[in-house]
Amino acid sequence: MKSARQRKDRVVLDTSLFVNPDVRNDFGDSPTEAINGFLQIAEQIPSLEFYMPSSIFQELLNFVNEKEIPGALLAVLHQKSPSKHELTCPAFFLYELIEDIRERVNKGLRIAEKAVRTAGKSDEREVIQAMRKNYREALREGIIDSKEDVDLILLAKELDALLVTVDHGAIKWAEKLGIRWLLPSKFKEYLLSFIQND
Amino acid sequence: MKSARQRKDRVVLDTSLFVNPDVRNDFGDSPTEAINGFLQIAEQIPSLEFYMPSSIFQELLNFVNEKEIPGALLAVLHQKSPSKHELTCPAFFLYELIEDIRERVNKGLRIAEKAVRTAGKSDEREVIQAMRKNYREALREGIIDSKEDVDLILLAKELDALLVTVDHGAIKWAEKLGIRWLLPSKFKEYLLSFIQND
Repeated sequence: MKSARQRKDRVVLDTSLFVNPDVRNDFGDSPTEAINGFLQIAEQIPSLEFYMPSSIFQELLNFVNEKEIPGALLAVLHQKSPSKHELTCPAFFLYELIEDIRERVNKGLRIAEKAVRTAGKSDEREVIQAMRKNYREALREGIIDSKEDVDLILLAKELDALLVTVDHGAIKWAEKLGIRWLLPSKFKEYLLSFIQND
Repeated sequence: MKSARQRKDRVVLDTSLFVNPDVRNDFGDSPTEAINGFLQIAEQIPSLEFYMPSSIFQELLNFVNEKEIPGALLAVLHQKSPSKHELTCPAFFLYELIEDIRERVNKGLRIAEKAVRTAGKSDEREVIQAMRKNYREALREGIIDSKEDVDLILLAKELDALLVTVDHGAIKWAEKLGIRWLLPSKFKEYLLSFIQND
């Protein structure tokens, strides 16, 4: 039996690390360069295992040319879906999610009503554009709203891993479920600390 | 140890049984009469245990005068919240819920856009009323959208009980979770079958 010290720590990555310009610059100027920059560091850290949900990896492929992804990445960054047919989530999670959605749905309706009242007085296209923006903000921001988000959270929970993401919804629910998380802006420093200490 | 035959079967009731005019008429012409009608039958069936989530019971109190509720009801119809801090739900439930909500949120936005486009051409009040109706249908019907709904589903699951409700959202999720359910319109006949056979 390995001691806790010897067990490899696990890290679950979101695409933002390689795609979001605000955070990927630590690793490279383009998504492909960022992947290579991450690889060069990650290969030097045998004590960490890196994972990405398969659905999130598919998203990443929309931003890079598949041929440009080095084969070594697939040896360092494991693709794995959460075991969704075995995993469970606490029931209180369901309550908080339903209550959150209920409030947002009501807010969405108020935004729509306001837009209808403005419609006669302003340019229709502008009204619709502003409404779309407000509606999406009200109903999507800070909430897990896609199966990719659920994959991220559940995989981190299943692996007892550190979650690296900028998604506010994922971070909020990670906190509710006791999942450790890190903002990608600190991730390069975090990785380098392993190399200096090893 | 009691045999399976001896174990009392459990039934979880929604308020609709006493409140919804379409279904309560089997038991009585007003909510209070329906409660009394149910009680008279239920008291004759020792092999069934009746439960209602506390939150749903609170809803029921909005429709009846608390003083008119016979004390015997509280001995026959047990109030109990699900054990929400111990219960878990399967992770696939979360995926289906999030996907369902995502589609509904998009549909809600399309309804709002259509209303804005109609706003200049019709009476503003009528446009808003029609939009509210369509929006609520799109975002609320056939989905569990309140903590009372979650209480119903989880209590039925926890007690391995028969769920009696007309709520489409609750029925849909009961089916996903393998919970038995019955429409209130058949509930009186169901109860009477126990009296004839006992």
